[in-house]
Amino acid sequence: MTAALLTDHYELTMVGAALKDGTADRRCVFEVFARRLPPGRRYGVVAGTGRLLELLREFRFDEADLRHLREEGIADEELIGWLSRYQFRGEISGYPEGELFFPGSPILTVSGTFAECVVLETLILSVLNHDCAVAAAGARMVTAARGRPLIEMGSRRTHEEAAVAAARSAYLAGFAYTSNLEAGRRYGIPTTGTAAHAFTLLHDDERTAFASQVAALGKDTTLLVDTYDIADGIRTAIAVAGPELRAVRIDSGDLSVLAAHSRQLLDSLGATETKIIVSGDLDEYAIASLAAEPVDIYGAGTAVVVGSGAPTANLVYKLVEVDGRAVVKRSEHKATVGGRKTAVRRHKPTGTATEEVVVSQGLPERQAGDQPLQRDFVTGGEQVDDIPALTQSRERLHDALISIPWEGLKLSAGDPAIPVTVVPAS
Amino acid sequence: MTAALLTDHYELTMVGAALKDGTADRRCVFEVFARRLPPGRRYGVVAGTGRLLELLREFRFDEADLRHLREEGIADEELIGWLSRYQFRGEISGYPEGELFFPGSPILTVSGTFAECVVLETLILSVLNHDCAVAAAGARMVTAARGRPLIEMGSRRTHEEAAVAAARSAYLAGFAYTSNLEAGRRYGIPTTGTAAHAFTLLHDDERTAFASQVAALGKDTTLLVDTYDIADGIRTAIAVAGPELRAVRIDSGDLSVLAAHSRQLLDSLGATETKIIVSGDLDEYAIASLAAEPVDIYGAGTAVVVGSGAPTANLVYKLVEVDGRAVVKRSEHKATVGGRKTAVRRHKPTGTATEEVVVSQGLPERQAGDQPLQRDFVTGGEQVDDIPALTQSRERLHDALISIPWEGLKLSAGDPAIPVTVVPAS
Repeated sequence: MTAALLTDHYELTMVGAALKDGTADRRCVFEVFARRLPPGRRYGVVAGTGRLLELLREFRFDEADLRHLREEGIADEELIGWLSRYQFRGEISGYPEGELFFPGSPILTVSGTFAECVVLETLILSVLNHDCAVAAAGARMVTAARGRPLIEMGSRRTHEEAAVAAARSAYLAGFAYTSNLEAGRRYGIPTTGTAAHAFTLLHDDERTAFASQVAALGKDTTLLVDTYDIADGIRTAIAVAGPELRAVRIDSGDLSVLAAHSRQLLDSLGATETKIIVSGDLDEYAIASLAAEPVDIYGAGTAVVVGSGAPTANLVYKLVEVDGRAVVKRSEHKATVGGRKTAVRRHKPTGTATEEVVVSQGLPERQAGDQPLQRDFVTGGEQVDDIPALTQSRERLHDALISIPWEGLKLSAGDPAIPVTVVPAS
Repeated sequence: MTAALLTDHYELTMVGAALKDGTADRRCVFEVFARRLPPGRRYGVVAGTGRLLELLREFRFDEADLRHLREEGIADEELIGWLSRYQFRGEISGYPEGELFFPGSPILTVSGTFAECVVLETLILSVLNHDCAVAAAGARMVTAARGRPLIEMGSRRTHEEAAVAAARSAYLAGFAYTSNLEAGRRYGIPTTGTAAHAFTLLHDDERTAFASQVAALGKDTTLLVDTYDIADGIRTAIAVAGPELRAVRIDSGDLSVLAAHSRQLLDSLGATETKIIVSGDLDEYAIASLAAEPVDIYGAGTAVVVGSGAPTANLVYKLVEVDGRAVVKRSEHKATVGGRKTAVRRHKPTGTATEEVVVSQGLPERQAGDQPLQRDFVTGGEQVDDIPALTQSRERLHDALISIPWEGLKLSAGDPAIPVTVVPAS
């Protein structure tokens, strides 16, 4: 299966009509941006570009694709012919993964003929809307965790392939591990996991289950202690594994109270180095509320993979330029500025970001502390060699979050961390 | 790529330990159910089972999978050997797609050895949590649309593969069309689409764009009239296509006002049969608010594919029986009943559902009007022949929604439409 039918019907209809009327080859610029962030969010996180570029490499219409389009009457022979030769030969540039964005930031720019650019709309938006949504939620959790490691364990709460992409975005956001084995294979993300409640229930009693796990995995493992009574579970865990047990996990109950009690109990049993992992419907607010408690590692599932209240990043893909002419839709509520944009982020001498300047059909006036935000990903249809690796993007985000004004890191609802000034073409 | 690594790390860890201690072959029953519906929801919709069964047919660990697990130290040779021979040989039964569910309904039951059942946990939950979430949101929109057709056009707002599954769930829920071409190919769902704002902007003016579209697609097409001024757009559309134009689409603005004005204008131009399609961030409430307006077709995007505020269905996969013994986790907040459940839905003589009775390790006392809810999907590892087709599931949901008390169809927050009585084993 190619990626080519991960596309909305109307893109092919438009190409078909444009081929007939001679506009298909007009030089066009499309931009991806968000008109607004999800309610109360202070920044967006660019994620998914690397995954998108991989999918674009296989964006071709093969025989099976074309047969379907012909049989269903979706494409006539002229369009079928064009699709059969389809190969993107244009340019793609944008913000690298891990960069922050704000309303109006042109995070991806696609230029080429109308026809070759418009058929990519759905795939580009699907990848970026999903991955950016997860990364933004993940980044807030990482901030809330204040340096304590996070495990992404939400695969079961989202579509099975979205789960793999979500693990990637969470890792980019700063999570330390994922539970998802395919994400480990595909992206090299460290995976982790030991046992579920089912493993305890399978055995005749908790002690037998713990003994089995320690026999199989050694003491450098995590015992899940809340299947029955948590205090009993901890005592049994230490009785079985000794104070060298790596960690206990608590997945239910009032985690702030339980973490403190568990720490006291572990210490009283001599297990002062045994870590406490907590999980169970943690979002950024729940994580923040545990800051003062003796928690060592957080496991986050549902909230991160569904974007913690914002499952999509509101990104749109808009035609902004045709044959050098700036174009813009002029309906009531969606006023935007046409023309290809160039973006820089301005900084104080201290390194703190102050604003993003986005200039249509021109270049921002250069100032000290300016950071150019766009880089080339595809030139003349060929992907450039230096697409950043996932670990580099992870570091980029870490650095970018340090650079924004401190109000930008608050979890509470507020304005975007810095303003974006969009300068129309003069 | 097989589906076998769409799995959480801990499932393999558990199998490894269970192989060593001799419990891997204990006969187990796992059940999928929701402890609660999303806040305020009155029913859940079973969706994804058909898609899951397809994925389970290819759930095998191939050489590449095993090499990864060996190289990463995730599996030792004993576990690698077991995984290399893995094939599910147990039984799967459950509620058919399109059936309703409520908190505690055992919508899927998986039985077999512990090891063969536990490795399916993540894939089962990923598919069902996603697909059920979309179907439930879609069903509320279909109810709100009161018989007017709906087009699913949300692919761009969700992960590219989740988009295909979302289109399937929306169709199951009663949507008439999808914009997603791959969903059309994979599941036979009717696709539709004509043009975006980009097509109008590409051309020198709106008239030229409309003329091109009509030349390519004929008058049986939909012209998007809100790129500039909507009234001008409608006049131009009818001037170009004549009153035989099939439809106009409005994607922005106050749709209730615009629909009424557009209808008047179309009628005054003699285009009394030209339909009005509205789209643009429609959810079930926005659709309901348009009930009195002259709207013919709704296009719904973001809200349906992200579950309209509930992007996951809260389904869990729990071990409930080991070698005939009912088991249950006993932590504070998650009391559930162990044992394999059998479920029936009770009805009044009028056909209105009154309650669901779920009996652990026994059969519900038979009453007139009882509807057995579970059917076999897999027996002895083999899928049964009569898995319902998607169109049948769509009809099932349509009928099921008629059978619940009318309060159950209200969009406002409320209790589940009918109660579930779970009867523990005696």
